[in-house]
Amino acid sequence: MLLLLLSIGILSSITKTGQAQNTKPYVRIARLVIDSSQITGYRAALEEHAVAAVRNEPGVITLYAVYDKEQPDHVTVFEIYASEDAYRSHITTAHFLKYKSTVKDMVVSLVLTDVVPIALETKPNIQF
Amino acid sequence: MLLLLLSIGILSSITKTGQAQNTKPYVRIARLVIDSSQITGYRAALEEHAVAAVRNEPGVITLYAVYDKEQPDHVTVFEIYASEDAYRSHITTAHFLKYKSTVKDMVVSLVLTDVVPIALETKPNIQF
Repeated sequence: MLLLLLSIGILSSITKTGQAQNTKPYVRIARLVIDSSQITGYRAALEEHAVAAVRNEPGVITLYAVYDKEQPDHVTVFEIYASEDAYRSHITTAHFLKYKSTVKDMVVSLVLTDVVPIALETKPNIQF
Repeated sequence: MLLLLLSIGILSSITKTGQAQNTKPYVRIARLVIDSSQITGYRAALEEHAVAAVRNEPGVITLYAVYDKEQPDHVTVFEIYASEDAYRSHITTAHFLKYKSTVKDMVVSLVLTDVVPIALETKPNIQF
């Protein structure tokens, strides 16, 4: 019984350590250029994907997708995941794979930049 | 009396129209390059400013400030204000003017891009 309790204790601390190391938010900026003849379709696919991901995946915290006012074919997505594991899980979901398949001939270029937070300040409970 | 009521009605609809046009979130991305010998000081000033602005200004919704993992002197701030008026008010505050004065010799370049939301999806009540 003591051995069992000790084993549970060890497993529990391994889990906690693992979580602590992997629960830093994983933040990334995606910059895309879209085929300008397909902007409307691209925006619809991206919006559908962002709504599904934030609603259905516990580890997808924020997907802020915008296009440049002066260059509407330039899109930026500011992405916050609960952890790097949450991101890895995200890219295996049905809604992500559907989005990638829908937009594969719409995206001219995609640059992904891993970033490190300086400040992530936001008001709570904002609905746009 | 009818004239007075009509006048109030007209004023009221002007105000409503004005509000409707000006209460769209105003979203912007700032991209900065920082003097690499002053990165630590710059980050501290930006963090202090972001915390003060989101805490004290009703119209400052989100300031997500990050630096590139591979190029730590490259900083991006994803900014959401309640309206363009809220942004104009923001740049007159004491904390903004203090930030601008503190960082004026730290910033090598600054590019501001007005952007239009495609999707602003986030979980409620996230604390980092």
